[in-house]
Amino acid sequence: MASTQQSFRADKKQKVADAAAGEKPLSSGDKEQDKLLVEQQAQQIAELQEILYAERKYKILIVLQGMDTSGKDGTVRGVFGKIDPLGVSSVAFKSPSTEEKAHDFLWRVHKQVPALGEFTIFNRSHYEDVLITRVHDWIDEKECKRRYQHIRDFERMLSETGTVIMKFFLHISADEQKKRLEERIADPNKHWKFDPADLEERKYWDAYQNQYEEVIRETDADHAPWYVIPADSKTHRNLVISSIVLEKLNKLKPAFPPGNPEFSKLKVV
Amino acid sequence: MASTQQSFRADKKQKVADAAAGEKPLSSGDKEQDKLLVEQQAQQIAELQEILYAERKYKILIVLQGMDTSGKDGTVRGVFGKIDPLGVSSVAFKSPSTEEKAHDFLWRVHKQVPALGEFTIFNRSHYEDVLITRVHDWIDEKECKRRYQHIRDFERMLSETGTVIMKFFLHISADEQKKRLEERIADPNKHWKFDPADLEERKYWDAYQNQYEEVIRETDADHAPWYVIPADSKTHRNLVISSIVLEKLNKLKPAFPPGNPEFSKLKVV
Repeated sequence: MASTQQSFRADKKQKVADAAAGEKPLSSGDKEQDKLLVEQQAQQIAELQEILYAERKYKILIVLQGMDTSGKDGTVRGVFGKIDPLGVSSVAFKSPSTEEKAHDFLWRVHKQVPALGEFTIFNRSHYEDVLITRVHDWIDEKECKRRYQHIRDFERMLSETGTVIMKFFLHISADEQKKRLEERIADPNKHWKFDPADLEERKYWDAYQNQYEEVIRETDADHAPWYVIPADSKTHRNLVISSIVLEKLNKLKPAFPPGNPEFSKLKVV
Repeated sequence: MASTQQSFRADKKQKVADAAAGEKPLSSGDKEQDKLLVEQQAQQIAELQEILYAERKYKILIVLQGMDTSGKDGTVRGVFGKIDPLGVSSVAFKSPSTEEKAHDFLWRVHKQVPALGEFTIFNRSHYEDVLITRVHDWIDEKECKRRYQHIRDFERMLSETGTVIMKFFLHISADEQKKRLEERIADPNKHWKFDPADLEERKYWDAYQNQYEEVIRETDADHAPWYVIPADSKTHRNLVISSIVLEKLNKLKPAFPPGNPEFSKLKVV
């Protein structure tokens, strides 16, 4: 049987068609049961993370990308929300500052990568530098190709120095985005999350989908895999992501470091 | 009735006698019931934090200090563990690096203070620079006094620019520390947390207690209060801290920002 990782792993001819966004291959058919499983898996991820923190052998990096409203925040909350604040950090990359723009695009990203034993979630990432920038023609094709190479080199280096990388594209359909934007507009309590610029970006929907396909094709690698997650259903999205993360962490066989026999002889006075 | 904040607020003649470390004034007498209340309060803190994040009006800074094994990590987990990773960051200050030592002692600290809407926990802090350094005579009394003034100025500035500061001294007795160190030594799975240097530091117990009294006296302020938390009981420690934090956050009357009537007229196409 194919592993969950294999099932959702991007392939070289990856298409991000709207239809696939609504699929629910992992669902039990019972939403409450699915939710319970997400909770259990989120708890298991938290427990494994504690061991990884003690072990100080790996660095875990989760990259979340997707269109506006695709559920990046909800994923952080639902899948990684049970991890001890000591062990997890979530980094939201916004529009770069003047200082950040004066550096190469990986400069601010590199500062935030996890250290040994740490678990870091990128809520948007260096991928914005080949997405929004390319869709709006702020960079040309040649520069974009150059950046793909920079990203491949950067991620390979991170991997070769102990970083376990998982990249998730939260795949929603245009209809689902419409629904979610309308909900935000309808609820004044959600206006703080809403930026009218999101409506402008929505006009570039097709260009974004094409660009995501190219980005995934150009930067997918065994040591830095892309997973394409059907994300029209929030519960199912969390179910798939927590399943993949759990599978991957278990493969690392996390174990508490062995005790030190010398310590056992010490006396506390 | 005195508020919980007032009850545990340090006073100008603050003593940190061993006896007080075991007191349980907030306990219901039933440990399971106390634990349940901690869970509920931790959940309420998480909910208020979400509103503070949306509101972007305050910056919340929690400082945790205490002797080795006093329960700083356990406090992060038990009191702040339910906050969404999007909204909380926990910063552990270790021995300063060469670069950090080449700067003033507040340099690395200032970089980590919360921005608007953020909630930051300092697990140890700039207070180490007037504790371990003074106890070991790495700085003299004159330099220490100068640093108190630097700290007072720094915290007043943070407060005047929107930071809500709460400083907790987790107060354990020497006997309780002995018990906890012995537990770590006895359990090989806990050896990764154990540093034999902790036994060396323990020899300076009295000097640390005296120094904590001085630090609290010198740096307590209404805008940056010290709370002295009896911490021999883990549950009761979390009960007191969660009560104080909750009381303080509620006083800020967090509210979602008002909706924007213009947004309500927008159409999603």
